[in-house]
Amino acid sequence: MRKNTVKQMWAEGKTVVNGWLHIPSSWSAEVMAHQGFDSMTVDMQHGMMSYETAVTMFQAISTTNVMPMARAPWNEPGTIGRLLDAGIMGIICPMVNTRDECEQFVGACRYYPDGYRSAGPTRAKVYAGADYVDHANSEIITMAMIETAQAVENAEEIISVPGLDSIYIGPGDLGITMGIPQGLDNDHPDFIKALEHVVATCKKHGVAAGIHTGSAQYARRASEMGFQFVTLLSDSGMMGAYAKQLVNAFHEGTQTVSGEAY
Amino acid sequence: MRKNTVKQMWAEGKTVVNGWLHIPSSWSAEVMAHQGFDSMTVDMQHGMMSYETAVTMFQAISTTNVMPMARAPWNEPGTIGRLLDAGIMGIICPMVNTRDECEQFVGACRYYPDGYRSAGPTRAKVYAGADYVDHANSEIITMAMIETAQAVENAEEIISVPGLDSIYIGPGDLGITMGIPQGLDNDHPDFIKALEHVVATCKKHGVAAGIHTGSAQYARRASEMGFQFVTLLSDSGMMGAYAKQLVNAFHEGTQTVSGEAY
Amino acid sequence: MRKNTVKQMWAEGKTVVNGWLHIPSSWSAEVMAHQGFDSMTVDMQHGMMSYETAVTMFQAISTTNVMPMARAPWNEPGTIGRLLDAGIMGIICPMVNTRDECEQFVGACRYYPDGYRSAGPTRAKVYAGADYVDHANSEIITMAMIETAQAVENAEEIISVPGLDSIYIGPGDLGITMGIPQGLDNDHPDFIKALEHVVATCKKHGVAAGIHTGSAQYARRASEMGFQFVTLLSDSGMMGAYAKQLVNAFHEGTQTVSGEAY
Amino acid sequence: MRKNTVKQMWAEGKTVVNGWLHIPSSWSAEVMAHQGFDSMTVDMQHGMMSYETAVTMFQAISTTNVMPMARAPWNEPGTIGRLLDAGIMGIICPMVNTRDECEQFVGACRYYPDGYRSAGPTRAKVYAGADYVDHANSEIITMAMIETAQAVENAEEIISVPGLDSIYIGPGDLGITMGIPQGLDNDHPDFIKALEHVVATCKKHGVAAGIHTGSAQYARRASEMGFQFVTLLSDSGMMGAYAKQLVNAFHEGTQTVSGEAY
Amino acid sequence: MRKNTVKQMWAEGKTVVNGWLHIPSSWSAEVMAHQGFDSMTVDMQHGMMSYETAVTMFQAISTTNVMPMARAPWNEPGTIGRLLDAGIMGIICPMVNTRDECEQFVGACRYYPDGYRSAGPTRAKVYAGADYVDHANSEIITMAMIETAQAVENAEEIISVPGLDSIYIGPGDLGITMGIPQGLDNDHPDFIKALEHVVATCKKHGVAAGIHTGSAQYARRASEMGFQFVTLLSDSGMMGAYAKQLVNAFHEGTQTVSGEAY
Amino acid sequence: MRKNTVKQMWAEGKTVVNGWLHIPSSWSAEVMAHQGFDSMTVDMQHGMMSYETAVTMFQAISTTNVMPMARAPWNEPGTIGRLLDAGIMGIICPMVNTRDECEQFVGACRYYPDGYRSAGPTRAKVYAGADYVDHANSEIITMAMIETAQAVENAEEIISVPGLDSIYIGPGDLGITMGIPQGLDNDHPDFIKALEHVVATCKKHGVAAGIHTGSAQYARRASEMGFQFVTLLSDSGMMGAYAKQLVNAFHEGTQTVSGEAY
Repeated sequence: MRKNTVKQMWAEGKTVVNGWLHIPSSWSAEVMAHQGFDSMTVDMQHGMMSYETAVTMFQAISTTNVMPMARAPWNEPGTIGRLLDAGIMGIICPMVNTRDECEQFVGACRYYPDGYRSAGPTRAKVYAGADYVDHANSEIITMAMIETAQAVENAEEIISVPGLDSIYIGPGDLGITMGIPQGLDNDHPDFIKALEHVVATCKKHGVAAGIHTGSAQYARRASEMGFQFVTLLSDSGMMGAYAKQLVNAFHEGTQTVSGEAY
Repeated sequence: MRKNTVKQMWAEGKTVVNGWLHIPSSWSAEVMAHQGFDSMTVDMQHGMMSYETAVTMFQAISTTNVMPMARAPWNEPGTIGRLLDAGIMGIICPMVNTRDECEQFVGACRYYPDGYRSAGPTRAKVYAGADYVDHANSEIITMAMIETAQAVENAEEIISVPGLDSIYIGPGDLGITMGIPQGLDNDHPDFIKALEHVVATCKKHGVAAGIHTGSAQYARRASEMGFQFVTLLSDSGMMGAYAKQLVNAFHEGTQTVSGEAY
Repeated sequence: MRKNTVKQMWAEGKTVVNGWLHIPSSWSAEVMAHQGFDSMTVDMQHGMMSYETAVTMFQAISTTNVMPMARAPWNEPGTIGRLLDAGIMGIICPMVNTRDECEQFVGACRYYPDGYRSAGPTRAKVYAGADYVDHANSEIITMAMIETAQAVENAEEIISVPGLDSIYIGPGDLGITMGIPQGLDNDHPDFIKALEHVVATCKKHGVAAGIHTGSAQYARRASEMGFQFVTLLSDSGMMGAYAKQLVNAFHEGTQTVSGEAY
Repeated sequence: MRKNTVKQMWAEGKTVVNGWLHIPSSWSAEVMAHQGFDSMTVDMQHGMMSYETAVTMFQAISTTNVMPMARAPWNEPGTIGRLLDAGIMGIICPMVNTRDECEQFVGACRYYPDGYRSAGPTRAKVYAGADYVDHANSEIITMAMIETAQAVENAEEIISVPGLDSIYIGPGDLGITMGIPQGLDNDHPDFIKALEHVVATCKKHGVAAGIHTGSAQYARRASEMGFQFVTLLSDSGMMGAYAKQLVNAFHEGTQTVSGEAY
Repeated sequence: MRKNTVKQMWAEGKTVVNGWLHIPSSWSAEVMAHQGFDSMTVDMQHGMMSYETAVTMFQAISTTNVMPMARAPWNEPGTIGRLLDAGIMGIICPMVNTRDECEQFVGACRYYPDGYRSAGPTRAKVYAGADYVDHANSEIITMAMIETAQAVENAEEIISVPGLDSIYIGPGDLGITMGIPQGLDNDHPDFIKALEHVVATCKKHGVAAGIHTGSAQYARRASEMGFQFVTLLSDSGMMGAYAKQLVNAFHEGTQTVSGEAY
Repeated sequence: MRKNTVKQMWAEGKTVVNGWLHIPSSWSAEVMAHQGFDSMTVDMQHGMMSYETAVTMFQAISTTNVMPMARAPWNEPGTIGRLLDAGIMGIICPMVNTRDECEQFVGACRYYPDGYRSAGPTRAKVYAGADYVDHANSEIITMAMIETAQAVENAEEIISVPGLDSIYIGPGDLGITMGIPQGLDNDHPDFIKALEHVVATCKKHGVAAGIHTGSAQYARRASEMGFQFVTLLSDSGMMGAYAKQLVNAFHEGTQTVSGEAY
């Protein structure tokens, strides 16, 4: 079976730089996969795509060596199974607030006896190899989102669930539920303290920590805090931000970097 | 009928800043339409969309006041007619090298007696008004691409075709056919001279001049030369360029502007 | 944030006329949005569209001032969240039979502390405003379907759930579970009595009452009973009914109203 | 090969009632195919669909005995061939103004030696039978649009082209180019005179005459004039017209016919 | 209402040969429906299609007399309801391991009082008849998957659930959970014993037994064991297998059967 | 720029085995690309896909080293340009019957000064390399179809057009126009003689010869005659043929090869 290079980078102590896809298009996915990211996540929760388009996006990512991943819309085994069958190498589950929820999530990702995933890896076998069923339980990354004050409180119970490979901080919801909303790059002391607690708990259990960020600076800061998986914005977020910069630069006469119109 | 604000801006001596869409998605189109552009062009020549998706992109642009436009894949009346019926306010035609080709193009865009466009403005009537057929000949912008050395030579004959509202420089092909390829922002003296010749000819005939650019600086320079319609890169080009900047900034520790993950 | 005009009409004591979409197409959605409806609902339960097409339908509706709404396929937080993120201003949930089910539904629609919706209003922010997260809990309409005999029995408990804005009668299922099936425009005395009971309970709790109808007459009757949200048939239902009328009129020589072929 | 029932109805002196599809959806196509029409035309010229969706619409029509047809976007052999390969039983070509154009059109629809259509009837063989290539030249209907003053003038030359089965009046363009625009149901005496001339010429050459109408009354009048193929509005046109009627009926308290919400 | 020919074949003691669809395309579905199968199942669990494409596949199958069926992604009433509304005549539910799960599944497929399915058979009424709601509870086939060791143990409790018409063996998961994985055509004695036990239990309760197979031989063997519903591979599985055979035959000079390129 | 391995195989005297795609799906395309073919052609002439789906199919093929190719619907520069921009490594043009037509086709595929292709290789640059424009004229294969008696007569004039890399025999049309129709694997002596004439002419001008076949045997025979590019049936053709074999094998008890249900 194809090796999961995200797991390899973690084993080598490296930080994975992850791209994030909201645009329902295999073309934008392919462009993103060529910009230097280590992994690329199709966001089925807040993104605009249906499953069928997500499959074409996984294929587009598979034209490169970037690891295809997805975020499930919810902790629901039917959808999680379909995403895995499409050949992703890691899956992020939103709103995992308790040990029970984490066990339900991990179980949905693992074949018997580690879980209750149903065998039928249609595209996964074509993409990752004919022996997929034999190795999927150890190669496919499970990543539970810790994104509420409650989840931070339950961090140890969640993170210690067998079969959980990693966690992912959702800063928007975490800020809101902590009563200190600041959007993506939250630097409230209590927020930072919560991150440190989660990272420490992860270290203790050999679990990798990930986080969504709104800038290269915050991503770097997170990496320095011990996060080994950092996401930079999203495809449409980057496109919009840069478009606005360029339009303003035209009107104001400021400098921007030249680009190509592919 | 809905007023064409691009024509109004031209009449006021302003420069229109145009966005350019290659991604086949109404979501990316809607995001782009919120970044300050005056018009937005769906590129059916080098873009990745089919007609049906292009229609959803025109709808997405129509949620704002930005003027929807399209580039046709070729000087072919069937496709041109379909794009116009979908409610665009301007159409760009590639590779118009002779007066004959320009007349064929303009004719395809105008109802009798100004041309041979077939009546059936399905979405155009819903978007632009029930009296569309009465005013379309004067409101809809025709824009012929001058993008070969031959077309520059024939500039006067092309630009003087009755019913032609504007021309559009394709710098890639123009550089290639002039033997001085430099991609988008060509500053070869002969190239600049060709641009100046075209702009002067446009002025003489009351026709607006447009150009595709690869940076805000070149767009500004073009505007100062007399171009009244400047395009900045493309959606996927901007997304890719900014993604690469951010990934590099993460690795190198350089500063970037913070953004949002929509 | 964009104001919810449905809520405003309710506050003014008016009845909202709602359109209903089963056809998976942004074109038919846009046509429907131009016919005088106050709101327009994409039916993800019995309609033929996937999420990705539903998004293009919301965009098409957003080219007008008609309020975009959706019916969720089921009381399931993952799908409900995705629909809200796409920028709808109201959501209808089928088969809410108990107070618990109603609380689960309302919670899925509200950010903390009013509920457990996950933050990430991708299109909602673009459509409804950058301050969406701050106002969504009060602007977005929650509408629970009362469509079983059991739900009518539990009406008070359901309707009094905090955060519930309105209820919606599903006449088909309600008739079946009451043992008096009559399809859409049920005039069985027991049925009418049940409607009156629900409307009275709504009045008591300041909750708006809605209903699906099969004719303008029944909609008018419902409005007179106190319903403030009435749906007229559906897009494909209207199209089919009128097509049959016209074909019959051709064969029988009866009169019909002239129309336009857009 | 499957028999073309439109040809059979013509042979029996009957008038074919044709439906017209602008909505890019196999669902609306299937609903329309159940309302009593004899044939159903997917309009690739002014409709909103791409080829791939058109194919699903032909399939939806094929669940009934209604004859699937299409209007090509233009007199262009590549697109005409693709539509025929998808299994339609008749094809309408817009803007046939001269004998040459008619011969080009008919040739694109016929296999050697009657024309230059390329063999590869992918879906046609599955839908219409394994012996499709042997019988297609005689079963598939060619229908040239006469929709300009010039075409009326050239009527005899056009209508007498060998292999042409029928013509189709486009009233919108015909009115415009005759200088008497009245939309669909034009009753200007000169217009009626032109229709009579075309019908008479058709009779002389054993060619069926068709026309697009905006009401059952005009369709009936056309049938009485000798037209054997009458189209009633379009899918989205009917839907929009009836929706407006119902909304108005609600507000004004007028009566309408009850329908079903499928 | 349209008669369910699968039920009729079962009543006559015949074995139904079922096709299986993973390719998200109405074209491949239509081709498959012409090859001699009695029923055709769109696999929403391990297949690559979204709901909207699945609907076009049901339509494609409906151009023939083959019975359209679907496998749901999971035992979830929202998705099951949507599939039924699209007009399928039977539904397969994965991972039914207990009597409770079976009751939940069957209830989702039946209208009151036999279950809790919501009325709104949008396409089902068009495809299967206007009286669909009256007969659906008895015509639509429910088929629970027995595909774990636990389910075999609970076979009697599952199979005896009122309203369950049939069961379906998933050999992949059953082999894995029994600790004897062999893929599709498992001939381990314990596996065969489990099959025999399930078939015997089905017989006892008048329930039909189905199974997924990887070859005509195993299907035949299953039929001889008492299975009355046998699936042969899948669309993409067959295509891939035969393509590999042909490529190898070219290189090795071996013989293959000639075919047609539709 | 990425090397064209089809050209390399030709230079080494090998025969390329080509796959053929009619199903509009990136999933079936990806499966086909894993079965041992050297190149894979998306057929935009007789296949069922629109451009946008074709792009996803090219991406799916690009997950392997198989060379992506396409057949254009017709000798029309707009569509040819779009297909090339999507990153294919070779293009087949139907119905090239004269030297003029061949020059028009080749010109549409080459940048100035070798032709008149417009620069804008959107996906081609991402897939094949940033220096695409510099090398495309020599790496991209042009393949003109010789598929009429007239074309065989004009073989020398067609084949000697500068920039033409190869020709492709369409046996269906060639048989029809020669008056000896036999479908795909035509063994009429006159047909074989025509093939030999074309192959000999190709040899003389250093042009590769290709042909569509219906079996491995005929492909082998063609290879022995000097054809260096042989296509085997099509995706849906193979799927249908094998499905029929399996269904018959079930009913008749004959043996077939076991497969997998991906």
